[in-house]
Amino acid sequence: MWDRMSTIAEEVMDEPPEEAEDYELSVGDVMTDGYVAVPADTSIEAATDRFQEFSPKDSTQTTIYYTYVTDADDRLVGVASLREMLSAPDDDPISSIMKDEVVSFHETADAEQAAMDVADLHYPAVPIVDDDERLVGIVRSDTLVDVMEAESSEDMLRMQGMNLPELKASDLTDVEEQRSRLMLDASLWEILRIRVPWLIVALAGGFLAGGVIGVYEDTLEAVVILAFFIPVVMDMGGNVGTQSSTIFIRGVVLGHIDKSNVARRIGKETVVGAIIGLMVGAVAAIVAFAWIGRADIAYVVFGAMVGTSVVAALVGFLIPWLVYLIGQDPAAASNPIVTTIKDVSGLLIYFGLATLLVIELGV
Amino acid sequence: MWDRMSTIAEEVMDEPPEEAEDYELSVGDVMTDGYVAVPADTSIEAATDRFQEFSPKDSTQTTIYYTYVTDADDRLVGVASLREMLSAPDDDPISSIMKDEVVSFHETADAEQAAMDVADLHYPAVPIVDDDERLVGIVRSDTLVDVMEAESSEDMLRMQGMNLPELKASDLTDVEEQRSRLMLDASLWEILRIRVPWLIVALAGGFLAGGVIGVYEDTLEAVVILAFFIPVVMDMGGNVGTQSSTIFIRGVVLGHIDKSNVARRIGKETVVGAIIGLMVGAVAAIVAFAWIGRADIAYVVFGAMVGTSVVAALVGFLIPWLVYLIGQDPAAASNPIVTTIKDVSGLLIYFGLATLLVIELGV
Repeated sequence: MWDRMSTIAEEVMDEPPEEAEDYELSVGDVMTDGYVAVPADTSIEAATDRFQEFSPKDSTQTTIYYTYVTDADDRLVGVASLREMLSAPDDDPISSIMKDEVVSFHETADAEQAAMDVADLHYPAVPIVDDDERLVGIVRSDTLVDVMEAESSEDMLRMQGMNLPELKASDLTDVEEQRSRLMLDASLWEILRIRVPWLIVALAGGFLAGGVIGVYEDTLEAVVILAFFIPVVMDMGGNVGTQSSTIFIRGVVLGHIDKSNVARRIGKETVVGAIIGLMVGAVAAIVAFAWIGRADIAYVVFGAMVGTSVVAALVGFLIPWLVYLIGQDPAAASNPIVTTIKDVSGLLIYFGLATLLVIELGV
Repeated sequence: MWDRMSTIAEEVMDEPPEEAEDYELSVGDVMTDGYVAVPADTSIEAATDRFQEFSPKDSTQTTIYYTYVTDADDRLVGVASLREMLSAPDDDPISSIMKDEVVSFHETADAEQAAMDVADLHYPAVPIVDDDERLVGIVRSDTLVDVMEAESSEDMLRMQGMNLPELKASDLTDVEEQRSRLMLDASLWEILRIRVPWLIVALAGGFLAGGVIGVYEDTLEAVVILAFFIPVVMDMGGNVGTQSSTIFIRGVVLGHIDKSNVARRIGKETVVGAIIGLMVGAVAAIVAFAWIGRADIAYVVFGAMVGTSVVAALVGFLIPWLVYLIGQDPAAASNPIVTTIKDVSGLLIYFGLATLLVIELGV
C-alpha cells in the first residue's frame, strides 16, 4: 500500500484505471462543488476571506479547509491548507505557499478504488480533474467512506445471495442502514423477492450434487454406510472453499491480486488446500475408522477430503477471478457456482474412490 | 438512525453504553491530543492564533479545524469552527460564538458504536470526556473509520473461521491491508494456524450430521434413493441459515436488533423461514417427483425443506444472539455451531419423516 500511495502522492492520477468496472460508482458520480478554489495570483488574505463567505449549500457538510489553486486555464496547480495560510504574510500570493504536488483523481476513476488509495492519507477531500487536468470538483473523504462502506456491505449481502439493486450515488448516505432496515422491516413480499431467487439457484446446485449420488446408486446400495460421510465431505468442501473465496475477494478489492500475480496466487492457494486436506483428512480418516472399523472406508474418506479440499481451494479462487474478468461483481455471482462445483466434485471424488477402492478392488 | 443521532446531538453522551463489550476498542483507546482547546474567556483572535502555532506531532494527521472550549474545571462547554471564528469580531470571547450543544463521547464508549453514531454527522472529530465531563482528548473521524473498517473486515474473516488475534489500537491503520496480506503472503505454517482449527471444529459438526444418517441406517438401507436428497436438504439449511445470520449480525451491529425487539425479530424471521421453506420446498418436491417418480419421497422432501428452513432461520438468529448475550463476538463464534445445528436438525427431520411416511406408513 505504501508503494501505491507514494506513487499517487508523486504524480497526479489523471488516467482512468485500466479495469474501471461498469457496475461501480466513479468519483465524478459522487463529487461536490462545496470548496474554495482561487487563481494562483490571489493574495493569501483574499483567499482566507473566501472561507468567511463560504457556506456549503448542504448544511450537514462540514467545511473543507483547503484552498485549491488553479492557473489561467482552470487547471489544478496547487493546494494550501488554511493553517498554512494563517501563518503566512497576508499580501503574498497563494502560489508562494501552496504545495504543487497534489493528489487528484480523474473524474472517471472508480470511487471505491479511490477511497482505498487515499484511506491512509487522511485527507478531508481530494480534487477531481477532467481530461485537460481542469479542476471540476472535489470528492469528500466522508463521501468516499460512504462509498466504501456501501460497497463492502453490498458485497457481504450479495455473497449470501441477497438480490439487491445496483448502488446509485443518491443511495450512498446510510446505505448499510437502509439495507439492514430493508432486510428486517420490508414487507414479506419484498423480503421473499430479495432472498428466494438465489435459494432456487442454489437448489439446482443441490439437485446436481444429488444427481452425483444417484449415479453411484449401486455403490451406495452395496455399502450403505458410505452415506454417513456425505455431510463430512460436503462440509469440508464448503468450508475450505468459503475461506478461499473470502480471502480472494478481499485480495482483489485491496489490489493484492491482479493479472500479474493471479496464476501464482491460485497455485499457492491450491497447495494450501492440499496441505489442509492432508491434515483435516487424516483426522477424519482416524475418526471414520474408529467409528466404522473399516480401513477401506477410512482410505476413501481421507482421499475424498484431500481431493475436495484441493478442488475447493482452487475453484474458491478461480471462479471469482473468472467472474471478475468478465466485469461482474465476484462477491455477487460466485457463491452458488462455487458451492455447486465443490459439492459435485467432492461427491464425485468420494463415490468414485469408494467405487474403485471398496467395490472393485476390495481394499 | 436519525432518532439515535438527534438524541446524541441534544445531550452529551456521558454515560458508558450499557452493553460495552470487553473485546472491542473504546474511544479512549484510540483518542489523540492533537487539537486546539481554550478556556471560554479566550479572545477569538487568541484562539485563532493557536492554529498557527498548532502542528500535530504526527505529521500524517491533517488539522482538526475546531476549537474546543472548556470552563475553569476543564469541563467541555462548547465548540467553534475556524470558519465561524474567521467571520466574528477578533476581540470577542470565544464563548460568544461557540455552540454549547456538543456531541461528545465518554472515554469508555465502544469505538465501533461511536463510529456508527457519528458517521452521518461527518464531523472531522468528536471530543472525549471523562466521568466529570472533563475534556480528555478527541477521536478523529478518520480513526473511527479505521476502527469500523477493521472491525467489519475482522467480522468477515471470522465468519469464515479465520483464527485471528484480537484487534489492538496500534493495529488500526491498515488492518484490512495487513489481514489480506497475512492471508495471502504469510508462511504456510501461519496460514495453517489461522485456517485449520476452525475446519477441525467444523469437521466434528460434519461427523455429528453423519451420525444422524448412521442412526437411520435401516431406513436408508431400505430406500437407498433417500440419499440422493441429502445435498438438497443440507444446502437448503445452509443457505437459509447463512442469510439469516448475515441479516442478524448486521442488525445487531447497526443497533436495529436489541433486547427490546429481539423476540419479535426472531419470531418474524422464523415465519419468513417457513414461507421460504414452503416456496422452495414446493419446487424441490416437484423436481424430486419428476426425477424419482415417487410421491412419498416428494412429500418427505417437501416436509424436510420446510422444517429445515424454519430451523435454519430460527437458529440463524437465535445462536448469534445467545453468543452476543454472553459477551462474545457473534460473527466469530456462531458459524460452526449454526452449521452443525442446521445439518443435524435438517437430516433428523428428513430421515425422521422418511422413516415415518415411507417405511412405517407407506404413504
